Amino acid sequence: MTDTRYKYLDRIDSPDDLKKLGVDELPAYCAELRQFIVGQLATNPGHLGASLGAVELAAALHYAYDTPHDKLVWDVGHQAYPHKIITGRKGRFATNRKLHGISGFPRMAESEYDAFGGGHASVSISAALGMAIAGELRGEPRRAVAVIGDGSMTGGLAFEGLNNAGATAADLLVVLNDNNMSIDQSVGAMKGALLKMRLSRRYNKFKRQAWSALESVPALRRFVQRSSSALRHSLLQENNIFENLGFRYFGPVDGHDVAQLVRIFEHLREIPGPKLLHVVTVKGKGYAPAESDQSVWHAPGTFDPDTGERDGGSVSTVAADKCNSQPPLYQDVFGHTLLELARRDSRIVGITPAMPTGCSLNIMMEQMPERTFDVGIAEGHAVTFAAGMAAAGMMPFCNIYSSFMQRAYDNVIHDVALQRLGVVFCLDRAGLVGEDGATHHGAFDIAYFRPIPDVVIASPLNEAELRALMFTASQAERPFVIRYPRGRGEGVAWDGELGAVEIGRGRILREGEDVAVLSFGPLGNAAARAAECAAERGVSVFHADLRFAKPLDAELLHDVGRRFRHVVTIEDGVVTGGIGSGVQEFFTAHGYDIRVVRLGLPDAFIEHGTQSELRALCGLDEEGILKTILDAGK
Amino acid sequence: MTDTRYKYLDRIDSPDDLKKLGVDELPAYCAELRQFIVGQLATNPGHLGASLGAVELAAALHYAYDTPHDKLVWDVGHQAYPHKIITGRKGRFATNRKLHGISGFPRMAESEYDAFGGGHASVSISAALGMAIAGELRGEPRRAVAVIGDGSMTGGLAFEGLNNAGATAADLLVVLNDNNMSIDQSVGAMKGALLKMRLSRRYNKFKRQAWSALESVPALRRFVQRSSSALRHSLLQENNIFENLGFRYFGPVDGHDVAQLVRIFEHLREIPGPKLLHVVTVKGKGYAPAESDQSVWHAPGTFDPDTGERDGGSVSTVAADKCNSQPPLYQDVFGHTLLELARRDSRIVGITPAMPTGCSLNIMMEQMPERTFDVGIAEGHAVTFAAGMAAAGMMPFCNIYSSFMQRAYDNVIHDVALQRLGVVFCLDRAGLVGEDGATHHGAFDIAYFRPIPDVVIASPLNEAELRALMFTASQAERPFVIRYPRGRGEGVAWDGELGAVEIGRGRILREGEDVAVLSFGPLGNAAARAAECAAERGVSVFHADLRFAKPLDAELLHDVGRRFRHVVTIEDGVVTGGIGSGVQEFFTAHGYDIRVVRLGLPDAFIEHGTQSELRALCGLDEEGILKTILDAGK
Repeated sequence: MTDTRYKYLDRIDSPDDLKKLGVDELPAYCAELRQFIVGQLATNPGHLGASLGAVELAAALHYAYDTPHDKLVWDVGHQAYPHKIITGRKGRFATNRKLHGISGFPRMAESEYDAFGGGHASVSISAALGMAIAGELRGEPRRAVAVIGDGSMTGGLAFEGLNNAGATAADLLVVLNDNNMSIDQSVGAMKGALLKMRLSRRYNKFKRQAWSALESVPALRRFVQRSSSALRHSLLQENNIFENLGFRYFGPVDGHDVAQLVRIFEHLREIPGPKLLHVVTVKGKGYAPAESDQSVWHAPGTFDPDTGERDGGSVSTVAADKCNSQPPLYQDVFGHTLLELARRDSRIVGITPAMPTGCSLNIMMEQMPERTFDVGIAEGHAVTFAAGMAAAGMMPFCNIYSSFMQRAYDNVIHDVALQRLGVVFCLDRAGLVGEDGATHHGAFDIAYFRPIPDVVIASPLNEAELRALMFTASQAERPFVIRYPRGRGEGVAWDGELGAVEIGRGRILREGEDVAVLSFGPLGNAAARAAECAAERGVSVFHADLRFAKPLDAELLHDVGRRFRHVVTIEDGVVTGGIGSGVQEFFTAHGYDIRVVRLGLPDAFIEHGTQSELRALCGLDEEGILKTILDAGK
Repeated sequence: MTDTRYKYLDRIDSPDDLKKLGVDELPAYCAELRQFIVGQLATNPGHLGASLGAVELAAALHYAYDTPHDKLVWDVGHQAYPHKIITGRKGRFATNRKLHGISGFPRMAESEYDAFGGGHASVSISAALGMAIAGELRGEPRRAVAVIGDGSMTGGLAFEGLNNAGATAADLLVVLNDNNMSIDQSVGAMKGALLKMRLSRRYNKFKRQAWSALESVPALRRFVQRSSSALRHSLLQENNIFENLGFRYFGPVDGHDVAQLVRIFEHLREIPGPKLLHVVTVKGKGYAPAESDQSVWHAPGTFDPDTGERDGGSVSTVAADKCNSQPPLYQDVFGHTLLELARRDSRIVGITPAMPTGCSLNIMMEQMPERTFDVGIAEGHAVTFAAGMAAAGMMPFCNIYSSFMQRAYDNVIHDVALQRLGVVFCLDRAGLVGEDGATHHGAFDIAYFRPIPDVVIASPLNEAELRALMFTASQAERPFVIRYPRGRGEGVAWDGELGAVEIGRGRILREGEDVAVLSFGPLGNAAARAAECAAERGVSVFHADLRFAKPLDAELLHDVGRRFRHVVTIEDGVVTGGIGSGVQEFFTAHGYDIRVVRLGLPDAFIEHGTQSELRALCGLDEEGILKTILDAGK
């Protein structure tokens, strides 16, 4: 399939090339672009569904607008593959998401056509508004276009952007790419509002025509504006949320009719002020397997492009994992354990901001739909909603990916920690996540949670301990963070009796004399292997799993302080302000004269690559840890 | 005025007492409540305007609802004084905002009537929704009411709450307290939308009546729902943003007609599902000076209750400060300097999330309205909007109070730092802010910004250096944070020639031999005085102003590392992960064997009191610093 010769695709490497085609040739070009993406992603995994849904959008936008002079901002960026291929990255597309290859998201540093980086949701309207206003102020008028999905539109940041933009005269077009999906099904009241807009197409058309007529006859317009009649209500009253917020609303239109899209964009291009085009698309469009199961095909892994058979199978059940004898995913251990805990304690509820499949809350959701809450792409709300529940006697488990938890930082401080409410935060995807890269690494959570008073911060050594920590947290009645990585456990038995762990208590994994290694989280397993190797090379290593970054195990640290001069701390997060700093703070405060070598992520943004490649780059694989231990023991 | 004997107020200390009054007696009670608040705040400063506007609301809510069983959540809490006085805190109200006194905001720990703490905006809908759903799940049905201002409604978190709630059947009432103000004038498209709602009162009344009729005749209702006629558009179509989001909308109604409010709440109490009551109030209601200048009287300081003469005069101009020979406020130095920089560099713009007066951006706003942007209570958007501007060639100065910057943490990481955009963040109210207490202290910014790669973090020693750092930042073309405290400078000459500072370079203020003191920010002035005292007592103190928390001054620290064994770091922020940790990290990494004593805020939430009281409590006044220096030198 990758050997295909394309009639159009082969000669288009820029928007200028694209503009040489006639509008009537665009459908054929789009079909080739779609075929190319399916072929590429079959062997090099990526975000398929959203990108297939945005093929015509990307082509029409670059055809109608003067990019890169006009600024095109893709929200999140899951859907930006067609854009990347149109704008000169077709030849490098096989390196997508690979180490030193192109990024899976828009990146300013990668191309002048990537007007703004992507990765996190709901950002595009604010950024594009800034660009539109900057253009005016600099006397360099340029159009700014934000392409945002219906899922991202539920984020409060998008609303803040609309509220600001709607009160300006900025030349901003928001393209609402409505496929009725986030990664999973869209949720919330906005979903219903968008559905009604879809159904009111005939009415909107009538209103648009009436408006056009009115605009050409000012006297008539003034008459209508002054009237308080039904006519006014029909014509001038804002009828949907976007119009209420000062945008001119157009649509809904078919997002896969590329010729019509071009005509519309050429028209909208000439209309000043903030405006929104509602485009209806199908996630996975044009590839039957992806259209039929949109959640799974959001990022399907490798697959046979002809049959649609996926190589990875379903990753959402532990049963499947057991069949192929791999350890379970941490997320599945979370999902099954939460269901088990919820069956024992009626106060327990599960909350996710639009990630039920990604964090495996769907396991509980299927059994207890009334006690699981997908609140939309709304991390801040997820946390404060959990705080409200806790204030009224419930015990919420709120699962948020580490890098997205950054979006609810104040909610944790102001609504949970300050009130010492019993909310459990499960941070999936903590540490290096791999191919999603810099925007998605859970690099900062240890460092940004550690300064918050009264918060417990824990990380399990393995899947059995995740279960134990969740049980512990459910009994703690205080703010409790459990961070764990993307990927699979260690293969230990994990689903036995539930037992609690003492909060703030680590454990010694290995006795030794020369160097003390203090690890936090599953990296402790690589550390244990490295300690073994070091011993074989004559360096006697003491190794403890700290298990809690806060509170630290004072007894253990005093013991280490008394016995060792050389300590290595190991964490899957930035070392600046991380657990290693905490250990150093402890030793200094208690007068121990110890050299702490802090191993973790450097003070730099880490790019994309596989998890194991990136860990090796950061010295966090067995070899890197061994080297650090041996150096420390010198 | 405080000796007044009140007919009603004196015998009402709980909602139960209140309920013994007849509805016809409530207006007289409210008048007394208002008089009491004015009298109290005349001598003990607090948030006057919003609380005067919410007198009837508070009385009517407690009269109609079964508090504390029903949950009443006050957004922000500026307006909660009447609520506090009704619910048993009248006797302690003279301690409002004082050390060990009652808090100026709702606090769960203070009263069972404070269903949720307040301080930051836009939180209430999410929290109240959590409570409503928790009540259902626990089989303890209770009504949940969120009272939220039109300013807070512009925050994305409020939208996220509405979007979630509108898709549920939760028994939630949102009371929109619309006074057309934040602390300053409300801004944004929502303002226009609310104005239209105010003007459509007759239409809403008609629709409400029509709905009532329809509800009593199900067959007729089904007929209307099925029709696609003008009738349906008139009756069933959602016409405003709240209805679009699944809420039943009621109002607007007069928020000062307490008897009518009681009737309405008694009616709404019986209507299930999410609903919103739009209440129109006047900020400062019933006290003429406060009604006439609502920004100034938001929190007016002390005043003569009879004449309305304020003791503090206007604090918004440096000219006034010069007259009374006090040093200027840091915020005014920011305001004047930004205007001056903006006159020299056309790329400079100023951005504030709803705090133009509070941060003195209004100084530039008056001169350059087209280059200053009040984006509403929307910290996340403020940052991403700034990032968009920077990506398109501008140099935004984004002023956000330190504790509110927590709300835009991911925006700084994802939209600014990761793209290394030249946005300058000026963090006013950094460190201990005083009477606003735990929710408002800028305690965490050093610790949470330090882990972010490529960000410069600076703090000035005095007002002259704030000016120099702002000039430096304007030329840095990279993410740049400048933190400075609430209050006045040191009285040094500050408005001379603009000069830059070398990034990452501190300076030695005093030479000495026994102890090295490394301070960050204006606390360095108290540290300098303490060093002087220590010298008099025979301890020779070296003192350097670090000026940059990131990057640290490596040359200076190497010098200190070589020469000293005892180092004291001083910062107006949490010590966990703060600049002291950074200094310790540096010494450890470079093999210096040094005991660092980190002086700063402890690992606990600090309550309210005056700034000097709180600094003394934390050992951050001259005396406390001296004690630490002497101890370190032993």
